[in-house]
Amino acid sequence: MSIETTTRPGVPQVTTGPLPASTKVFRPGVLHPDIRVPMREIALHPSAGEPPVTVYDSSGPYTDPTAEIAIERGLPRLRRSWIEARGDVEEGEGRAVRPEDNGFVSGSHLTPAFPVQHRPLRAKAGRAVTQLAYARAGIVTPEMEYVAIRENLGRAEIRAKLERDGEDFGAAIPDFVTPEFVREEVARGRAIIPANINHPELEPMAIGRNFLVKINANIGNSAVTSSMAEEVEKMVWAIRWGADTVMDLSTGRNIHNIRDWIIRNAPIPIGTVPLYQALEKVGGIAEDLSWEVFRDTLIEQAEQGVDYFTIHAGVRLAHVPLSASRVTGIVSRGGSIMAKWCLHHHRESFLYEHFEEICDILRAYDVSFSLGDGLRPGSIADANDAAQFAELETLGELTKIAWAKDCQVMIEGPGHVPMHKIKANMDKQLAVCGEAPFYTLGPLTTDIAPGYDHITSGIGAAMIGWFGTAMLCYVTPKEHLGLPDRNDVKTGVITYKIAAHAADLAKGHPAARLRDDALSRARFEFRWEDQFNLSLDPDTARSFHDETLPKEAHKTAHFCSMCGPKFCSMRISHDIRAEAQKEGMEAMARKFREGGQLYVPLEWGD
Amino acid sequence: MSIETTTRPGVPQVTTGPLPASTKVFRPGVLHPDIRVPMREIALHPSAGEPPVTVYDSSGPYTDPTAEIAIERGLPRLRRSWIEARGDVEEGEGRAVRPEDNGFVSGSHLTPAFPVQHRPLRAKAGRAVTQLAYARAGIVTPEMEYVAIRENLGRAEIRAKLERDGEDFGAAIPDFVTPEFVREEVARGRAIIPANINHPELEPMAIGRNFLVKINANIGNSAVTSSMAEEVEKMVWAIRWGADTVMDLSTGRNIHNIRDWIIRNAPIPIGTVPLYQALEKVGGIAEDLSWEVFRDTLIEQAEQGVDYFTIHAGVRLAHVPLSASRVTGIVSRGGSIMAKWCLHHHRESFLYEHFEEICDILRAYDVSFSLGDGLRPGSIADANDAAQFAELETLGELTKIAWAKDCQVMIEGPGHVPMHKIKANMDKQLAVCGEAPFYTLGPLTTDIAPGYDHITSGIGAAMIGWFGTAMLCYVTPKEHLGLPDRNDVKTGVITYKIAAHAADLAKGHPAARLRDDALSRARFEFRWEDQFNLSLDPDTARSFHDETLPKEAHKTAHFCSMCGPKFCSMRISHDIRAEAQKEGMEAMARKFREGGQLYVPLEWGD
Repeated sequence: MSIETTTRPGVPQVTTGPLPASTKVFRPGVLHPDIRVPMREIALHPSAGEPPVTVYDSSGPYTDPTAEIAIERGLPRLRRSWIEARGDVEEGEGRAVRPEDNGFVSGSHLTPAFPVQHRPLRAKAGRAVTQLAYARAGIVTPEMEYVAIRENLGRAEIRAKLERDGEDFGAAIPDFVTPEFVREEVARGRAIIPANINHPELEPMAIGRNFLVKINANIGNSAVTSSMAEEVEKMVWAIRWGADTVMDLSTGRNIHNIRDWIIRNAPIPIGTVPLYQALEKVGGIAEDLSWEVFRDTLIEQAEQGVDYFTIHAGVRLAHVPLSASRVTGIVSRGGSIMAKWCLHHHRESFLYEHFEEICDILRAYDVSFSLGDGLRPGSIADANDAAQFAELETLGELTKIAWAKDCQVMIEGPGHVPMHKIKANMDKQLAVCGEAPFYTLGPLTTDIAPGYDHITSGIGAAMIGWFGTAMLCYVTPKEHLGLPDRNDVKTGVITYKIAAHAADLAKGHPAARLRDDALSRARFEFRWEDQFNLSLDPDTARSFHDETLPKEAHKTAHFCSMCGPKFCSMRISHDIRAEAQKEGMEAMARKFREGGQLYVPLEWGD
Repeated sequence: MSIETTTRPGVPQVTTGPLPASTKVFRPGVLHPDIRVPMREIALHPSAGEPPVTVYDSSGPYTDPTAEIAIERGLPRLRRSWIEARGDVEEGEGRAVRPEDNGFVSGSHLTPAFPVQHRPLRAKAGRAVTQLAYARAGIVTPEMEYVAIRENLGRAEIRAKLERDGEDFGAAIPDFVTPEFVREEVARGRAIIPANINHPELEPMAIGRNFLVKINANIGNSAVTSSMAEEVEKMVWAIRWGADTVMDLSTGRNIHNIRDWIIRNAPIPIGTVPLYQALEKVGGIAEDLSWEVFRDTLIEQAEQGVDYFTIHAGVRLAHVPLSASRVTGIVSRGGSIMAKWCLHHHRESFLYEHFEEICDILRAYDVSFSLGDGLRPGSIADANDAAQFAELETLGELTKIAWAKDCQVMIEGPGHVPMHKIKANMDKQLAVCGEAPFYTLGPLTTDIAPGYDHITSGIGAAMIGWFGTAMLCYVTPKEHLGLPDRNDVKTGVITYKIAAHAADLAKGHPAARLRDDALSRARFEFRWEDQFNLSLDPDTARSFHDETLPKEAHKTAHFCSMCGPKFCSMRISHDIRAEAQKEGMEAMARKFREGGQLYVPLEWGD
């Protein structure tokens, strides 16, 4: 409704204000009474006689009209006290920012440093500060309770009404999520809570097969286009529409400073691909990469607060030849860079060789692994091939190593896969990676629709989400063609919210259908405003309706321009029900069931 | 490239001109040497060293630069001689147009009659003129040979290269489609060729599980908005982007004359819901409908040349009470009208009672049945319920009656269905309707995204197409909100072309992947123009690319703005291949396979 943008000179403008008819509410913890878990309540018209509909809210303080947003100061650091209370961290000087961190730019070309610099935390010697370590130790952290409350969507109040209906392919979604359930899932490695100790602004969330399906939005500039201000707004805009995590895939210059602006203002986990910055540090020459440069970059970004790192440690020298006969070669940026390095030096990947040291770094900050699928297929022709599955086997090995080090892990997946080959990906990932959460890009189900790859991939995303993928990485309409702008980000996010929600419904998530049913009732009762407000994108729904019927009176009209009044099936359905009340539709139905003369009995399978 | 529009006063303007890099080619028949089957050849850049890619072309003469388009005269009547040659038809005076056919409008409110009026044909007494009757008699009609050539997409030349890879759930798609195969499929009722003898302008096409998955676009004005000229252009526009059939769902006034303009200019089958016009004839009062008015409308539209009729004869009085507890009641317009009639009169549906007479009429013109699913679910909550499946059982009964009368039949399907309940629809339809082609609307996999229901339904459409649905009825972004405009029509068509093609790929259609592979090779080789031209919507792909890299030089650049030059994985893949040529990637791969020391052998399942 009231979209506002901040307007201080030199400070990025971001979109704020609540969504239509929506109120941000906070639920307190029980184990940890000081936590306040945000949800969004969508109010319905009084004629509905229904309570507000509670939905998951990843948008952070930006949609809270009572919150004061000051991009140049960053968000409140709510987790700081939780982290300190555990007594496992120490503050340090941290690594100083170096010229190469921002591509050696200076003067007016340099994105200004974020105005507030915090001293970084790291684990005390010998301590693990990961949610996995705490979960294994039997500790229910505030983060875990936060996640439990958040995932329930107020299920406590409606437990009696919940009906389970779905096919979950072996998932184990509980009727009610307890903090202890979250702890168990994290301890088993079946879920992660990406939450760097240096990102206390984060509102904790979980990625796992037994939780709501999540979506990630990629942002980030490229050497060709975009700026810091645009990227910060893209992040805020992406979470406004429902992105659960955001990956900053910036390349080019100013990469350190842009990331700082993003993280300090991000209430959601931020992921990166550290290799991109490492490559910038060596002037873009893949062969010049080294373990030392990469290690330095991991520490730099861990101290900034990145919550998960995509690391392509599964691209081994031995795998590179497997890509030789592919139609589209290696399409992962990180994968192609590492393949080039391996081949040039004729050596095993330094990521693979130093994997245990990488674990030690990530463990000290609780950065989660997102084990990258550097050999994912880039075309239908290359789907499920030897290169892809060889790498997946390696990711399974690496998962076990990371778990032994108390590191949280998720596994990245394809890519371009025709529908009949999607389930094999999920099944194999579950088998070889010990149920670590799967995080897939699409998959795109055909190659022939550039400009519409949010749709080609939304189809695959919905299906693989149903089969068990825990987080879906969005694809925008610009995929393969250019860097997404703000509109593309929104289209990608809404498309993937559809895919994730369709997956939740099909899995039989106990609370997923409540919103569908509320919207359908609003539709049937011609509560147009409620229909708009309950939708994923109220602004678009309203504007489409208003193109032909703009008047306020039409917001209660018993028809729309699609069919007009005489041909409105819903209006006629109401007439039918009114008519039936003379005899009583229920009585007729009973007669029907009893097989009276008038209503012949029918039979049908299942 | 060169989109043109006609500009004669008083005549609808339509979009003409070829698609980029495309040439319309015609292939002759063998059994029937006079038939000329259109296909589109997309030329590739000489550097590709590849022949043009042949794709299915439903766009008719509008994309043929050598064709003279004169909307006021209509398209050439190419099938007229085929029909006459069979000797089964006679020309008659036909039913005179009456004031109620156009809603009693006159003067300036009346859409002008189409300038050329043809005397209608009908079957001679005792003769059946349906493709089913001919197929059963062992006759391979020109229509059947036309379909066979059309479906092959030039497969004869590439037969040796075809690899089968898919899961077809019991379909039987041949490597090569012969005219005899088409005849058999039609004779078994597994495919239909909708082709009214009074629509000789039509380029024959088939709808069946063992052919390419087809899509339908709905157009038509409503009482609230739109006009004849807009609807004619929507039809031409829809087939330009790939619609295989078009349903004219016009309601309101001028319905007869609008339909005439559409049919006389339609190279694709036109479907209607005759009940809509019948209702207009009785002033919009459902209770006043009668068999006589409906029968009159069937004859009126059959004489005009409508190729298939949606007839909601499965909505029986006994079924109405089953909708009583639904969240969204009856959402089919035809279904709700018939339910209201049944309930008001407390009588069995006149469509059901007069079904054999309906068959006799359709048989005399070869109008195909599209047995309507008047009780399809309108929300996730109502999916696969008793009302829906009771009606489907009835549709199975009616199919057998229609087949006994030599009528061609397809069956309409839902609607709103969550992913885990989609396959049950397909399986039940195959079982109870004897493999008659299924024709589904979506299904929508969630209710919560009005404004994006092309996507919520595109997911379901791709899946049910894979499972065996023969034709997918598109849903536009305006669904539930308003009448689609020209842009919505295009978005709906492209989305459904994606769904249909993804289904063909997954079913293992032998020629489907050729286009994906050609596009992927173009992508990998930075043939940007080829990538655009091979895509479903070249205009959008090109414009998205050009937003950030508009220069002509960028059309051969080895990167785009998404990743920029340094981070282009495809560019790096080429470097890798160049590098590998020093040793020889194939040699390395061989060494790998032999389990040399350098490349460790890996194993993976299936």
